[in-house]
Amino acid sequence: MYQYDYLFDFTKNVFIKMGISKHNATIIAEVFLAAELRGHASHGMIRIKDYYELWKSKRINTDPHITIVHESPSTAVVDGDNSVGMIAARKSMEIAIEKAKISGTGWVATRNSNHFGIAGYYSMMALEHDMTGICLTNANPLVAPTFSISRMMGTNPIAVAIPAMKQPPFVADFATTPVARGKLAVAEKKGEKVPFGFVQDKDGIPSDDPAILKQGGSLLTLGGDRVHGSHKGFCLSSIVDIFSAVFSGANFGPFVPPSVAYLPVLDKKTGEGTGHFFGAMRIDAFQPADEFKLKMDEWIESFRSAKPAEGQEKVLIPGDPEREAAEINMREGIRLVPAIKDDLLEIAEELGIDFI
Amino acid sequence: MYQYDYLFDFTKNVFIKMGISKHNATIIAEVFLAAELRGHASHGMIRIKDYYELWKSKRINTDPHITIVHESPSTAVVDGDNSVGMIAARKSMEIAIEKAKISGTGWVATRNSNHFGIAGYYSMMALEHDMTGICLTNANPLVAPTFSISRMMGTNPIAVAIPAMKQPPFVADFATTPVARGKLAVAEKKGEKVPFGFVQDKDGIPSDDPAILKQGGSLLTLGGDRVHGSHKGFCLSSIVDIFSAVFSGANFGPFVPPSVAYLPVLDKKTGEGTGHFFGAMRIDAFQPADEFKLKMDEWIESFRSAKPAEGQEKVLIPGDPEREAAEINMREGIRLVPAIKDDLLEIAEELGIDFI
Repeated sequence: MYQYDYLFDFTKNVFIKMGISKHNATIIAEVFLAAELRGHASHGMIRIKDYYELWKSKRINTDPHITIVHESPSTAVVDGDNSVGMIAARKSMEIAIEKAKISGTGWVATRNSNHFGIAGYYSMMALEHDMTGICLTNANPLVAPTFSISRMMGTNPIAVAIPAMKQPPFVADFATTPVARGKLAVAEKKGEKVPFGFVQDKDGIPSDDPAILKQGGSLLTLGGDRVHGSHKGFCLSSIVDIFSAVFSGANFGPFVPPSVAYLPVLDKKTGEGTGHFFGAMRIDAFQPADEFKLKMDEWIESFRSAKPAEGQEKVLIPGDPEREAAEINMREGIRLVPAIKDDLLEIAEELGIDFI
Repeated sequence: MYQYDYLFDFTKNVFIKMGISKHNATIIAEVFLAAELRGHASHGMIRIKDYYELWKSKRINTDPHITIVHESPSTAVVDGDNSVGMIAARKSMEIAIEKAKISGTGWVATRNSNHFGIAGYYSMMALEHDMTGICLTNANPLVAPTFSISRMMGTNPIAVAIPAMKQPPFVADFATTPVARGKLAVAEKKGEKVPFGFVQDKDGIPSDDPAILKQGGSLLTLGGDRVHGSHKGFCLSSIVDIFSAVFSGANFGPFVPPSVAYLPVLDKKTGEGTGHFFGAMRIDAFQPADEFKLKMDEWIESFRSAKPAEGQEKVLIPGDPEREAAEINMREGIRLVPAIKDDLLEIAEELGIDFI
């Protein structure tokens, strides 16, 4: 088990050794550790190696100049200058929040970025300003539209954070697929099958093989099949892709650049880098802030008191499981699986940093 | 088969007979007929009777004064004055579009409204202004959160319309449940079962009985069960409910007033009427309009050329099926099922309007 501060300092130092400023390395560490705390290890320390390898391949800009390239009173398009995704994303959400202070809402589409960790982190930046925060991103193509076998989209997450008064905030942060890719890897390692409705094979036949992506298969959209509404999941993934990439001028769908160095840079580009989309809405642009937050308390309490189904303990409000995980992991420490620990030991040795 | 114009005039005249202005009755008819054209009869002429009965019960305001009660440069809260939903909704989307002209984007939360027909209609209003349109609404509670048996939410749809250049626009319009309530009614009438993953019984046990809602059952959220991501569907339905009701000051979740007169007015209120949420985003607030629309063409063409799965003809872009249906129904006429025709004949007789 590792203490939060130990992993935070280690992560920060890894990125400083890559030539990234202390300020930016601190932001990167904060987002990686937020994923670990909130129980989303698939977006945490496991990704440090991906960025380390991209850096060694000179595919990341360690000294980015992030700029606004287009704007209106409530919108901006940001060029991330091929930075580590967290740097472009945090800056973009800050701009959205500043726009919202003046115009009521702020909306920023970001291009020329890279994998930014967990979407929930950026949506939650709005909370301390008494704003609702929204964050979308596209990602490496693994997901097929309904009726298709082509990998056209990423797991394209949606995050929405809404402040309350006495209740903790409402924080939804979810991929627009039934399951994240990481869960397939876990099942594969354990030699287990996965439920039907997650993946299909290269011909579009439903599959329960967690390794099917390596054989030309694809992830399905939320809903799983047409009968159960996969076309609605396709709508959601598409909207996230268009807002993130067409609004910003990033690469869309199948042209999103790989977030790992072992996959080659794609020949065709439809824009610059990976795309994100951020929103900030001042709650007092709609209702007096205290009234809004009290009403959110009432909403949350009402849904918490919904009757559980047989065998279930309680209804979970979006954000509950992650907040509970964060409290436990901050108190008891963060566990890294041996394979990730080995990767980090190797990186530490190559960069001349301590890690135990 | 009925011609569009015949049903349009009939619908308009029904609402004029209820004492609604010619201007407002025209809007109402346009939205009802848009649903019929686009193949969503569940939101079309079948609903005229519901409004007729609400009017007879004096539960609808036929002479509403719709007002902005709160605003910022990019936002407004609108009070619909208990009007027919289409009136409040169209006015609200117009305000969102006006806000967007000045501030880049416009966001309107509407309270004290009623059932407004199809969400897609309002999102599509943005297209002729070279804007992206968004529309959400809450609705009568029939849907249970993951792990629960309580009916806490409506089928809470999301509509997003995005303009393109040569290609038709991208228009997503979908309920955040695997299936709309209307499809259960159809299966019940035919004496058929429905697939598992649509509904559960009063104890939360998965059911294939389309009549289970009458026995205390509930609709499930998109995803169907926890394994297949129903908690993500719950996140979506929740976000739609909060944006529509908490942002606006309407009734949330289980307190949304019935859209039919045979259900009594609820004792408890958490706000005023039904709530909606509208967004309009000028595409040139992000990219020069022509560049944006050409990129959308490229996006649509790219997804259209995705490889179909075995036995499938092609990938459908959101909006394709509805547009094709509208062309056919405008040309060949609109079919009404006998039960709906009977309802309309009865209303016509009571109001002294011709209908054959």
